[in-house]
Amino acid sequence: MRIMESTAELQARADAVRAEGGRIALVPTMGALHEGHLTLVDAARAKADEVWVSIFVNPSQFGPEEDFERYPRPFEADAAACRARGVDVVFAPEAGELYPDGHQTWVEVDALTRPLCGAGRPGHFRGVTTVVTRLLLAAKPHVAVFGEKDFQQLAVIRRLVRDLGFDVEVLGAPIAREPDGVARSSRNRLLAPAARREARALARALDVAERAVADGEARADEILARVRAELARAPLAFVEYAELRDPQRLEPAPTRLQGPTLLALAVHFPAASGDPGARVRLIDNRVLHPHLHPEDPS
Amino acid sequence: MRIMESTAELQARADAVRAEGGRIALVPTMGALHEGHLTLVDAARAKADEVWVSIFVNPSQFGPEEDFERYPRPFEADAAACRARGVDVVFAPEAGELYPDGHQTWVEVDALTRPLCGAGRPGHFRGVTTVVTRLLLAAKPHVAVFGEKDFQQLAVIRRLVRDLGFDVEVLGAPIAREPDGVARSSRNRLLAPAARREARALARALDVAERAVADGEARADEILARVRAELARAPLAFVEYAELRDPQRLEPAPTRLQGPTLLALAVHFPAASGDPGARVRLIDNRVLHPHLHPEDPS
Repeated sequence: MRIMESTAELQARADAVRAEGGRIALVPTMGALHEGHLTLVDAARAKADEVWVSIFVNPSQFGPEEDFERYPRPFEADAAACRARGVDVVFAPEAGELYPDGHQTWVEVDALTRPLCGAGRPGHFRGVTTVVTRLLLAAKPHVAVFGEKDFQQLAVIRRLVRDLGFDVEVLGAPIAREPDGVARSSRNRLLAPAARREARALARALDVAERAVADGEARADEILARVRAELARAPLAFVEYAELRDPQRLEPAPTRLQGPTLLALAVHFPAASGDPGARVRLIDNRVLHPHLHPEDPS
Repeated sequence: MRIMESTAELQARADAVRAEGGRIALVPTMGALHEGHLTLVDAARAKADEVWVSIFVNPSQFGPEEDFERYPRPFEADAAACRARGVDVVFAPEAGELYPDGHQTWVEVDALTRPLCGAGRPGHFRGVTTVVTRLLLAAKPHVAVFGEKDFQQLAVIRRLVRDLGFDVEVLGAPIAREPDGVARSSRNRLLAPAARREARALARALDVAERAVADGEARADEILARVRAELARAPLAFVEYAELRDPQRLEPAPTRLQGPTLLALAVHFPAASGDPGARVRLIDNRVLHPHLHPEDPS
């Protein structure tokens, strides 16, 4: 496994692999790799001859009040995990490599980035789309793999790739979960112990909604009431949003669900760090599939 | 010579050329090709095995009051000129190919796009940088050639390429001029005949400034006064801007020039079209090289 820090070096290798007809799959990450990331590596492996993982905690996608400094950076463990999983290249650039002196170029996706995480994290998606553009130009992959946990991010990147005409296939990989159902996230390790236990509320709320829909419930407000009731059973939880949206355009769902519908959650919990005000933001989601009754009068 | 309309087809050819070790140079244009463009083709030829010309009148870089509809589109003549000059591929996409349904992704360069043409044409450079990103992703060239007549555009694209890490060399080509000194432009043919004669004022004003500097003048206000006096000899001219700026960052020049300095002009003239209010916007520029006196007290 090679560890590279330079864009030019990575591009040279991409050209060499491509010249020999090899296929490259890129897994962009911010490091602090867990089993969720490693399932992305496996998904990438199934699609390509070479699997490349980028590890870069991207400053421009963090707001001034967010956890950029606190975000975990266990590079040695990450490199070891990549090596053990058969990764061919780890791209681990310094910030100055991706944001050269005088940097002033931004890539923005418009409507898709406004609701959900975009509403609560101004500038976040601009940072994501800018760095993903740069990573795709650096690695020139045939396939790029992203987790479905960041559902909105995946939708935004699909739009970015389509709108700019990147010849890369964007592959979404299913949410990986801890044994207790909590979606795997690098931020889970930042949770206070009691908060870590309560974090199960997100997955439970998704289950509640899924069961309601399976039982024939199609009223958006009723589904959301059950979701909020389930989240309310976690007293440490602060709900940033719990919303039903169309999975393609992320527009608000109709009052009665009429097809596959995204249920997206963002919930804050107390952090384990000494700072009593520090919070950890967790997200989770599921696409609900209501029964469709063509004769339904609504 | 091949004419292509599809991004995917162009990318497939780029991959094939690259796999054989061939080098591609792209000349992005809006068509209405003149000898200025064709000198770009020659510059491209000197740098690559294949010369590709894109012809696309990019709607997103025109303001609502601008001449998008009026912009000339002589495609057959353009294709013939490319063929005669040895161009290998003409990429002539429809607007829907570069801006797919639901398009909402924009590439923006910040500080460099604010002054000069950016001040008078809000959104113009966002359109330019977005379409250039898309064209570079479509053609995957080793070299991209742009004219120095659009000095600010060239500076913005150099910044874009550096900030996003495109592995493409950006090549600027000198301004091509008509026999009477007017910078070659697709818009020259839109000028009313009297305006076409007066358009020589731009190049004359650049000459006046160059002579002043050669004679030792270093005061910015004095140089600009002479430039404006020269432009004032063209009664049909409306001066949008005449400015001295640092050629890298495009920041305002100091009161006494202290190194290479951009003199940039944008001047409007009456159009030949029936509409008496219709105007044609011409730009021109030159980098002035003042004498440097290390002992100069200022």
